[in-house]
Amino acid sequence: MHTIHDTQSFSFASDNYAGMHPRVLAALAAANQGHLSAYGEDVYTQALQQKMQTLFGESAHCFPVFNGTGANVTALQAMLPRWGAVICAETAHINCDEGIAPEYAGGVKLLPVPTPDGKLTPGLIDQQAWGFGVPHRAQPGAVYISQTTELGTCYSVAEIKVLADHCHQLGMMLYMDGARLANAVAALSVDVKTMTTDAGVDMLSFGGTKNGMMLGECVLTLNPSLAQAMPYLRKINSQLGSKMRFISAQFLALLEADLWLELARHSNAMAQKLYTGIQAIPELTITQLPQANAVFAQMPLSVAAQLHQQYHFYDWNQHTGEVRWMTSFDTTEAQVEAFVKDIQAAFAAAR
Amino acid sequence: MHTIHDTQSFSFASDNYAGMHPRVLAALAAANQGHLSAYGEDVYTQALQQKMQTLFGESAHCFPVFNGTGANVTALQAMLPRWGAVICAETAHINCDEGIAPEYAGGVKLLPVPTPDGKLTPGLIDQQAWGFGVPHRAQPGAVYISQTTELGTCYSVAEIKVLADHCHQLGMMLYMDGARLANAVAALSVDVKTMTTDAGVDMLSFGGTKNGMMLGECVLTLNPSLAQAMPYLRKINSQLGSKMRFISAQFLALLEADLWLELARHSNAMAQKLYTGIQAIPELTITQLPQANAVFAQMPLSVAAQLHQQYHFYDWNQHTGEVRWMTSFDTTEAQVEAFVKDIQAAFAAAR
Amino acid sequence: MHTIHDTQSFSFASDNYAGMHPRVLAALAAANQGHLSAYGEDVYTQALQQKMQTLFGESAHCFPVFNGTGANVTALQAMLPRWGAVICAETAHINCDEGIAPEYAGGVKLLPVPTPDGKLTPGLIDQQAWGFGVPHRAQPGAVYISQTTELGTCYSVAEIKVLADHCHQLGMMLYMDGARLANAVAALSVDVKTMTTDAGVDMLSFGGTKNGMMLGECVLTLNPSLAQAMPYLRKINSQLGSKMRFISAQFLALLEADLWLELARHSNAMAQKLYTGIQAIPELTITQLPQANAVFAQMPLSVAAQLHQQYHFYDWNQHTGEVRWMTSFDTTEAQVEAFVKDIQAAFAAAR
Amino acid sequence: MHTIHDTQSFSFASDNYAGMHPRVLAALAAANQGHLSAYGEDVYTQALQQKMQTLFGESAHCFPVFNGTGANVTALQAMLPRWGAVICAETAHINCDEGIAPEYAGGVKLLPVPTPDGKLTPGLIDQQAWGFGVPHRAQPGAVYISQTTELGTCYSVAEIKVLADHCHQLGMMLYMDGARLANAVAALSVDVKTMTTDAGVDMLSFGGTKNGMMLGECVLTLNPSLAQAMPYLRKINSQLGSKMRFISAQFLALLEADLWLELARHSNAMAQKLYTGIQAIPELTITQLPQANAVFAQMPLSVAAQLHQQYHFYDWNQHTGEVRWMTSFDTTEAQVEAFVKDIQAAFAAAR
Repeated sequence: MHTIHDTQSFSFASDNYAGMHPRVLAALAAANQGHLSAYGEDVYTQALQQKMQTLFGESAHCFPVFNGTGANVTALQAMLPRWGAVICAETAHINCDEGIAPEYAGGVKLLPVPTPDGKLTPGLIDQQAWGFGVPHRAQPGAVYISQTTELGTCYSVAEIKVLADHCHQLGMMLYMDGARLANAVAALSVDVKTMTTDAGVDMLSFGGTKNGMMLGECVLTLNPSLAQAMPYLRKINSQLGSKMRFISAQFLALLEADLWLELARHSNAMAQKLYTGIQAIPELTITQLPQANAVFAQMPLSVAAQLHQQYHFYDWNQHTGEVRWMTSFDTTEAQVEAFVKDIQAAFAAAR
Repeated sequence: MHTIHDTQSFSFASDNYAGMHPRVLAALAAANQGHLSAYGEDVYTQALQQKMQTLFGESAHCFPVFNGTGANVTALQAMLPRWGAVICAETAHINCDEGIAPEYAGGVKLLPVPTPDGKLTPGLIDQQAWGFGVPHRAQPGAVYISQTTELGTCYSVAEIKVLADHCHQLGMMLYMDGARLANAVAALSVDVKTMTTDAGVDMLSFGGTKNGMMLGECVLTLNPSLAQAMPYLRKINSQLGSKMRFISAQFLALLEADLWLELARHSNAMAQKLYTGIQAIPELTITQLPQANAVFAQMPLSVAAQLHQQYHFYDWNQHTGEVRWMTSFDTTEAQVEAFVKDIQAAFAAAR
Repeated sequence: MHTIHDTQSFSFASDNYAGMHPRVLAALAAANQGHLSAYGEDVYTQALQQKMQTLFGESAHCFPVFNGTGANVTALQAMLPRWGAVICAETAHINCDEGIAPEYAGGVKLLPVPTPDGKLTPGLIDQQAWGFGVPHRAQPGAVYISQTTELGTCYSVAEIKVLADHCHQLGMMLYMDGARLANAVAALSVDVKTMTTDAGVDMLSFGGTKNGMMLGECVLTLNPSLAQAMPYLRKINSQLGSKMRFISAQFLALLEADLWLELARHSNAMAQKLYTGIQAIPELTITQLPQANAVFAQMPLSVAAQLHQQYHFYDWNQHTGEVRWMTSFDTTEAQVEAFVKDIQAAFAAAR
Repeated sequence: MHTIHDTQSFSFASDNYAGMHPRVLAALAAANQGHLSAYGEDVYTQALQQKMQTLFGESAHCFPVFNGTGANVTALQAMLPRWGAVICAETAHINCDEGIAPEYAGGVKLLPVPTPDGKLTPGLIDQQAWGFGVPHRAQPGAVYISQTTELGTCYSVAEIKVLADHCHQLGMMLYMDGARLANAVAALSVDVKTMTTDAGVDMLSFGGTKNGMMLGECVLTLNPSLAQAMPYLRKINSQLGSKMRFISAQFLALLEADLWLELARHSNAMAQKLYTGIQAIPELTITQLPQANAVFAQMPLSVAAQLHQQYHFYDWNQHTGEVRWMTSFDTTEAQVEAFVKDIQAAFAAAR
């Protein structure tokens, strides 16, 4: 099997357009050969469990799965009774980008709340957190937040603590979708345990795919009461990999010597560089504070169309001309510089 | 990340205890670097689609997914109305080894039939294929067969044709779980299209994981009416990989120069070698005809216990002493020879 | 079994606080005795089917079920593929008052839209009707409207036609929750076929419980392609009654000599009488146009609290003091007059 | 609405071909008129709860629902985690007669066991009660028995105790489908609490429909840990009736002065009379011990065909000529005598 794509290609579409980091690829080779027990009974998965406990505390349990939707559906089921509902931002990935997986496969109802920046607050949660004990009303049992959010913003540690306390006071659990957890930890320069376990997060996903892995996420139960259900839920959601050593080994490579943070810091820095390069363009509006590896910008539709001829990226709102530009672990300074020039040229041409 | 396992370890537990073939690993490296569109909009997945059409005919569509349970659940949903049921052997993987994924996540009822050898026949199907049009009765809409079966046996092309005709006459579809499709094609020495598309199979899974891939299966729709639903069903079952190039590239490596058949032939040959080596042992009964890469044998419990001290393998029936020994693409002649000797020694010691 | 409640009690809480109309009770007696085939194979259900075809046209099929949630879940499943979603008003009954039945039991995702009056428009529908063909996005396949709405408002025939055309142009179906269909027909003074079949409604529920029946709703397929699925879906949603004659007979009594419209007209008239009696109160705001049998009014919290001491009714918004007052087929003029007096007195006392 | 059926018609098809008992109809009238809180907040439902506690003990909670499938699906969900499975007889109603409601709507997997007489034993349960803790295996969490069984047989109190103990030792719960509970209590001449609560049954349904009610079953939680989930589960399974007083009032009528047992005793006696009348026919084989209100008999196909010309009844096995004859609360001695004569005549004609 030969390479049939342009290995120099790059884009600002998504961090999952990138491939895998060389050390992740090397980890696949290192974990290969010989026979190992399947379904997680292998030394790589055991080592990963230990590593995760080092990061998240002794009570953390780690369950490697295939992808983010699988992680979310499985985790929400673990936190909720059969009749439970999840409060989330209207822009949440589970509400917008997972088909009807949470509802059909998960059996979960979402209670979405409009937000300005993809972030929930106790006040916003309260718009849906009511009707407890009334069978006619879907029973809110968990709150879903994304860190970083789908809009490239971050919750501070203090904000997460407030949310967790609020959830627990209302008898709900707090779930953090960490598909881009590394970018948040890098952006906030905090310890990951401080931002999760210590802040009161009950359960989270730890994303690998968007940060240089080939494939793989971890579901982490921080509230130990949630761990028991996970092996069964992972199985019935088709998220139990047989040759799990290869998912675990990727994570071990990512966590070794803090590669995960190094990659996220780089990715974030590239977004900042992009942001810095374009913020002076008068006809362009930055619509969200770029805290991690995404830049949301609004521009005339014609300018966006012009840029689309050369670059892959997502239209966030086809009516307003808002677009999303995303950097990844392998985005280079030169690529950003070229992109900034092309953006400026597109605006100039449109004037 | 360093190698932390014994790369010389081997077992006869399962073909998913093995790692990946070097050419599969090389394919991951070849597909790496640069940015490619996610979720299957990449050149590797396009090339795979073409390759699969070469193998299965122009009307075949190919949908890479993560694992076998995901493939089965998704495929069954595609073939069935919301109220549909699936006839399968009592020993079927969907009935015994997928938790309640078919029922809970798939919303599907299984109608199991006892079989002597894991194989359905029209007569066995008819034990459950009745009550059409009666809402009280779960409506049989598809028949599930495994090729090779969970008992290591194979359907001949003629048998598959008879099943497909029988299904279609009753208004049902025929699904083939091909987690070990390669082993069946190798065992029967037939063209894969003859055994599937031409025989009337409506849908199948094409297994990669158990034949030297790191991870990945393909759902194939041969009946073109089934293709339209698949992108949506794959998504809601959490089986849509973002960096899909890496699953597709593995399959391309496996299909190139018929590596898949070469590996399966080797694996089957190792099972035959094992079978040949032990069939003369008087206290041992071969319980299923070893047609592919599994040997089912019954022996005194004490002998099985003795062998377990040295080898990983599955007890098929803890009461009768029936065990399953499985070979894989990387099983060596020396390993089989050593195992045969150890089996003989265990019997000798027990005499 | 003796009467153990106050048969003179009345309330403005809900039309399902009322009992059944004497002619409905008489119908139960008339249908009693002797043996009849169960599950709908009886002469009463056959007569109902004919009656419904007289009302809704030859292509209508009628499926009696137990309650409104059962009718809605079953109907939505009939209109949608497994991956389908339903656009509805944020205030829709399926979104607010059915627990997570649509999601958990139905496997359906709701796409809610805020509305000022509980009514959808093409523009409001378009807020959610997008992303067709994109598996990441829940696929809108049906639009749910209530007639009358949960806010006591009505769609005109012209409005329904516009919605139906809009839905069909987008490849979606239009479902009407007619839990209070009679009240809408009575309010609009139109023929029921004009408002449904002829306007392009694909499927609807015809409510009996809230209009003087003991229990029972009918799911009606007007688009004949939807009829085939219904017997199976009704069964798997536990909505197939065995002694169905007793549900059908109630409907026959209701439909005979247009009793259903007579009761609805009366109920609506009582709401108008209530509205007329209180609209001059200066501190009271009517928040929705009272088109059917509900009056929504906003008042100081203290006044609402005062009235609660004497009457059962629902707080619609505990923060703003908005309440819902509902009349039913058996609400009397004297009851309304007494209530109006008590409302006026409560306001007077608060001044 | 007039009577349009033959009120003298009778059959031996099913106890749900019958109508309602006059005292049940009278109870509907007695509970009518005036306004009562909906959804179970009424005095009739409160009285029923008290009555049920008198029958089943202080810790019993009672949840009226619409039908047997709804009762079963709701109850099984209450006893099982999301990944749980139910062991049942192959002939169980949930396995044969509820479409795919347990699987699709309930999310439950059934683990059926062949039985000679529709009755489970610890040994039969053990055929499926294994694999605890192994995520690949559906996790058995409850055992479903029917009392009386679908084959007209009964469990003795001692047998139920043994089953309950066995379930509890294995960490499973015992559920009793009591669609014909009255017939079992009448047949065994035991106190209902002895047969349920005291025997260790965790949850049961108490059937009304098949014993002279128009419609209605009660789910009863005897194990008090199960009560909390029921209001929510009843709602999401569309089993929460709004005018619940009318279901509760029927039950109160049935329970008053032990009418339920009187009706069941009569029904059972009519089956015994039928059995006695035909057992001497040499070509006829009684295939199940007729302990309650059903008689299973095997005869030449021609004889069965002859009887079908005059009577409604179910063929249990179209190949062997086994049929089911069922009596009901309103079956008369004269009807049985006429039927016996016609059976004898049919055999005579065939000789």
